[in-house]
Amino acid sequence: MTSPTSVNVADLREVARRRLDPVLDSYFAGGAGDERTLRDNEAAFDAYRILPRVLRGVGTRDLRTKLFGETISMPVLVSPTAFHRLAHPDGEAGCARATAAADTIMVVSMAATTAIETIAAAAAEADRPPRLWFQLYPQPDLAFTESVVRRAEAAGCGALVVTVDSPVFGRRERDLRHGFLDLPDGLCCENMRDPETGGIRSIVMDAGLDWSRIEWLRQITRLPIVLKGILHPADAALAARHGADAVLVSNHGGRQLDGVPASIDALGAVVDAVGGQLPVLLDGGIRRGTDALTALALGAVAVGVGRPVVWGLAAAGEAGVRQVLELLRADLDRAMALAGAGSPAELTPDLIRPVVRR
Amino acid sequence: MTSPTSVNVADLREVARRRLDPVLDSYFAGGAGDERTLRDNEAAFDAYRILPRVLRGVGTRDLRTKLFGETISMPVLVSPTAFHRLAHPDGEAGCARATAAADTIMVVSMAATTAIETIAAAAAEADRPPRLWFQLYPQPDLAFTESVVRRAEAAGCGALVVTVDSPVFGRRERDLRHGFLDLPDGLCCENMRDPETGGIRSIVMDAGLDWSRIEWLRQITRLPIVLKGILHPADAALAARHGADAVLVSNHGGRQLDGVPASIDALGAVVDAVGGQLPVLLDGGIRRGTDALTALALGAVAVGVGRPVVWGLAAAGEAGVRQVLELLRADLDRAMALAGAGSPAELTPDLIRPVVRR
Amino acid sequence: MTSPTSVNVADLREVARRRLDPVLDSYFAGGAGDERTLRDNEAAFDAYRILPRVLRGVGTRDLRTKLFGETISMPVLVSPTAFHRLAHPDGEAGCARATAAADTIMVVSMAATTAIETIAAAAAEADRPPRLWFQLYPQPDLAFTESVVRRAEAAGCGALVVTVDSPVFGRRERDLRHGFLDLPDGLCCENMRDPETGGIRSIVMDAGLDWSRIEWLRQITRLPIVLKGILHPADAALAARHGADAVLVSNHGGRQLDGVPASIDALGAVVDAVGGQLPVLLDGGIRRGTDALTALALGAVAVGVGRPVVWGLAAAGEAGVRQVLELLRADLDRAMALAGAGSPAELTPDLIRPVVRR
Amino acid sequence: MTSPTSVNVADLREVARRRLDPVLDSYFAGGAGDERTLRDNEAAFDAYRILPRVLRGVGTRDLRTKLFGETISMPVLVSPTAFHRLAHPDGEAGCARATAAADTIMVVSMAATTAIETIAAAAAEADRPPRLWFQLYPQPDLAFTESVVRRAEAAGCGALVVTVDSPVFGRRERDLRHGFLDLPDGLCCENMRDPETGGIRSIVMDAGLDWSRIEWLRQITRLPIVLKGILHPADAALAARHGADAVLVSNHGGRQLDGVPASIDALGAVVDAVGGQLPVLLDGGIRRGTDALTALALGAVAVGVGRPVVWGLAAAGEAGVRQVLELLRADLDRAMALAGAGSPAELTPDLIRPVVRR
Repeated sequence: MTSPTSVNVADLREVARRRLDPVLDSYFAGGAGDERTLRDNEAAFDAYRILPRVLRGVGTRDLRTKLFGETISMPVLVSPTAFHRLAHPDGEAGCARATAAADTIMVVSMAATTAIETIAAAAAEADRPPRLWFQLYPQPDLAFTESVVRRAEAAGCGALVVTVDSPVFGRRERDLRHGFLDLPDGLCCENMRDPETGGIRSIVMDAGLDWSRIEWLRQITRLPIVLKGILHPADAALAARHGADAVLVSNHGGRQLDGVPASIDALGAVVDAVGGQLPVLLDGGIRRGTDALTALALGAVAVGVGRPVVWGLAAAGEAGVRQVLELLRADLDRAMALAGAGSPAELTPDLIRPVVRR
Repeated sequence: MTSPTSVNVADLREVARRRLDPVLDSYFAGGAGDERTLRDNEAAFDAYRILPRVLRGVGTRDLRTKLFGETISMPVLVSPTAFHRLAHPDGEAGCARATAAADTIMVVSMAATTAIETIAAAAAEADRPPRLWFQLYPQPDLAFTESVVRRAEAAGCGALVVTVDSPVFGRRERDLRHGFLDLPDGLCCENMRDPETGGIRSIVMDAGLDWSRIEWLRQITRLPIVLKGILHPADAALAARHGADAVLVSNHGGRQLDGVPASIDALGAVVDAVGGQLPVLLDGGIRRGTDALTALALGAVAVGVGRPVVWGLAAAGEAGVRQVLELLRADLDRAMALAGAGSPAELTPDLIRPVVRR
Repeated sequence: MTSPTSVNVADLREVARRRLDPVLDSYFAGGAGDERTLRDNEAAFDAYRILPRVLRGVGTRDLRTKLFGETISMPVLVSPTAFHRLAHPDGEAGCARATAAADTIMVVSMAATTAIETIAAAAAEADRPPRLWFQLYPQPDLAFTESVVRRAEAAGCGALVVTVDSPVFGRRERDLRHGFLDLPDGLCCENMRDPETGGIRSIVMDAGLDWSRIEWLRQITRLPIVLKGILHPADAALAARHGADAVLVSNHGGRQLDGVPASIDALGAVVDAVGGQLPVLLDGGIRRGTDALTALALGAVAVGVGRPVVWGLAAAGEAGVRQVLELLRADLDRAMALAGAGSPAELTPDLIRPVVRR
Repeated sequence: MTSPTSVNVADLREVARRRLDPVLDSYFAGGAGDERTLRDNEAAFDAYRILPRVLRGVGTRDLRTKLFGETISMPVLVSPTAFHRLAHPDGEAGCARATAAADTIMVVSMAATTAIETIAAAAAEADRPPRLWFQLYPQPDLAFTESVVRRAEAAGCGALVVTVDSPVFGRRERDLRHGFLDLPDGLCCENMRDPETGGIRSIVMDAGLDWSRIEWLRQITRLPIVLKGILHPADAALAARHGADAVLVSNHGGRQLDGVPASIDALGAVVDAVGGQLPVLLDGGIRRGTDALTALALGAVAVGVGRPVVWGLAAAGEAGVRQVLELLRADLDRAMALAGAGSPAELTPDLIRPVVRR
């Protein structure tokens, strides 16, 4: 059941807070260290002003967006988040149905509590073709990593989203205080199932990861490779040189290194560094249509939403995710109309004026 | 009855809060989205400092201001706001009487709850010639739009103030939460009366609106055309090219696209862009004489006040509006004396020093 | 009796708050309009950082300062404030004794509740030569103005401090709310006594005041003329050209035009504009030795303190003023030692680094 | 006993607050004046963002750092703080054991409540070679100063850390209010024992101190000389010229001149001024691995921690100090991994982006 009184994402976040066990809520909501970056992700949008254009005849707007040759209904997709079945029994399958209904992309987390094949089947129940991407922490065991990639390919995933900001785990002190360590009985990381033993492997953060592993991935799969977690412009430039197909500007929702910039503050330099060679995506702090509009105008081709989806899921399962996505679609559509843009392509940098940060 | 203990606009706002139904108060006071722009409209003035001149012999000050060949007593006018009879039974007629008494301009809202003819008659009761302008949302039905323009002309309105920032309705979440949707029985938008059926039409926000409609308006009327809701300098430049007679820098009181700049922050670039070809007006956040002084010094020829008038009206009807306008007049006069300016023309940009914003 | 537990000016301000009638406290503490400038006067110092020098051998420090050929014991003087007998029975006479004991200058207010002759006699009781300056609001009645100047000269005042920021009264809304209008029975502005009728005149704020009046003053007296209330660099330049002997950067303690810069923020441009032709003084927000140090390093030759003196007076009469002045002397001496300066002349602009303002 | 529930330095600070007498807690925690610099030391780090590098293969990290030819296990050392036995009976000896166990440097305060010989003996109990430096307030009595230097040399200290920011005592108003003046019976500054009389001398702040004393020290000892308390770039340049071996950017924990910059804000200009001629260290506000990382990336070769060590000591004695040092080591190691740096040398300035300060 959706939340009819929720008029925005913040409302759904409050519904989620009431429904979730506080320790779990804290797990989903929390960040690393002092949570400076966590807070900044949202607050940073306040440092950009939108200069709308008027009288542009925007009676028909078209939000469709092309990524790797496929068209989605809007430039908003579902960023990977772990453990959906902790948030709601609908879990990743419900999220996938809702995302498919919204005709956009769900990036399935490697730490999903549902197998990619099950998620793909759920997504296929929607009227529209499922659009799943698969998020990958490359594991030191290359054979196992390859087996995961093969499962993603077989399930019809359209891209690999390789997380590059996690050589080690971020220190999330809320979880340390709560003793939140592992999944309860009955839940596990289904995509970490060992093809030989049938057991569930732990996800390893591989501090040894370097560009050669990206090149190895490039060789073992034809799926487009999105590097998730790029903030330094030099790395954005390297991504193009090492065969990545896109970069996703992200700070892991403030959960890895506290003190890094808000995603939106890092976007401009990354866009400049890739110089049009690769599409640039962004996640982190998108809660409003105007947030998405700002990122798109500054050069992102699409934005991802993570926690809002978790909150929708926790609030009302599949229907809650649908509500989040439709709220954001309507909000972006309205913001585009009010800014005089009939399509994402008309969202140009001159619409945004940075303000000196508080 | 005026509020003798109200020494400033903020006091009258509190009186209004006590007298208004909370849902209505929220309707008048609220803005779009997270209300960032709403708050910023007022707060932004804190980012400008006035550098007063001294020893300039300002024993006689003259606040008179010329607009489209007519002279008003001060560079402060009444910006359009909807539904005055919701605020007080005196409604638009009372507001018009008070504005006429103050010898300045009232911009009558297309969403007035009183017919323009009745408002004009009320204004004419004052000793001074009524000075009404008419605010227009151009409707997709051109014939109906023309009929409204003709009523405004016939009622003696001196200009058309064409709102260009509203291709769609802004999302005002306070109203959504309160279920505030429509006028109560007995009140309607009298200026939307269909000349043929006699029924009241709904105001349509026309997302298809473009510059050709301005040119069409230019052809059907000789009234000066003021474009209200310009924030982007490029649109200010276009306004001059498409035959507008003035631009009004405004963000619709923060009620349309949240995240746009405070009006005062957008003024300078607009003034530069029109380069003296057109007069520039401003509304948004004017609560003090020093606010008006700041806008005038930065290049506005006059400023509008919206909510302060509604608060005056809600607090004490016609007399409350009069109190608001006289408070602002005295405050501006005092500020000009203290800044060493004997007339608005002596308010020059060197009197203002921008401060890096918080 | 001094306040032994008061370790700083803020403590004395709290003692004063407890001893004063709230309406009077509000009169002394309040400012104009929204009191933005009032708050900013103190807060602005937080936007400057001191870069101390080390190992400079500052075992002996000398705070003596020369003004118009006279030497005072420190670059801190008493700025004019009205109505001392409202704060404490010791009144201006007590303040003068304390100031003389501190071997610095008291600028006597034209709105003093004690005659300048009585104040001068009190100051003469101290061991050191009294150093009084006289603050003047030039009155439209030139003959009366001249009679006041003659009284000041006869009483031995060393300079005229001509207030130029008051063409009209600032609007202090606290006082309007409290109905604070006039002095109680038994107190009056003794320096406004008409030499012919013996009655007390009201102080007139003369909006017609211009540079010709400064030139007239220049002709009727040989006293040095300090222009108090200069904030715009252009006026600082004019001051030199019209025969002033010094300028005092001041915003009248935030009591005249709200929205003008904090004094310390206006200082640099004024110092640049006078280019060494005139000494520049400053008052506004000085509460600590580091505040004084900052102003001196940025080019002020001395700083005035107004409210701190009133608080000292209210807290403990003459002894309280003495305590304030000795607290500030010790604080400035310590700050100079810690910044590596043995004398005010060694306080150079490189010791100050501006910070972008909050 | 360590505090198992303390996951960061802030937690240990709270444990310390609960265990310490409030007057003592205030002594350790407080700063000079309005404590602007005290607060700023921590807050300033929020004005720097870390731009991490990714995919750099940081599976093995090496935090070892070389100072004056000796290698310590990490670029974090213990800054001098007074009166450890007031915080915990383990006192300086416990702190020395913990620091030695962490294989880093303890800078012993001249105001230690334990004799340097005893501290050295305690440090030697650890498995690793003790690494003590000695902090010196040069006393006007040169013979006595030399005797102290000789004791430090004899105890095996590896460097002299000469405090240059204390020509006079900073005014710590908390202590004035509390009447905190001196050590209780049984505790004294053991390193101030007069070699002839056997009595304890008071530490004299010598305002006459200048560069000639540094040169004198340079002549009487072969120990490396670190100048502690440099903030002005001109002094950093002079340090190199006068034979110092290193500078320590510090504001004495905000306890001397209030209003000076946060240490991290002063670092860059000092690093530029020494131009690689001397190693630059920093203390002030380091509470997190990311704080240390920021300072190292901006050019510090190592950072010191003062209050965190006192809090660890107060919370749990020797074990608490150990916990603080290991928390910081792990935090820095994690931050380096997440920023893509395998060693301190790989922490380059491009990793840091300054933000306009709030």
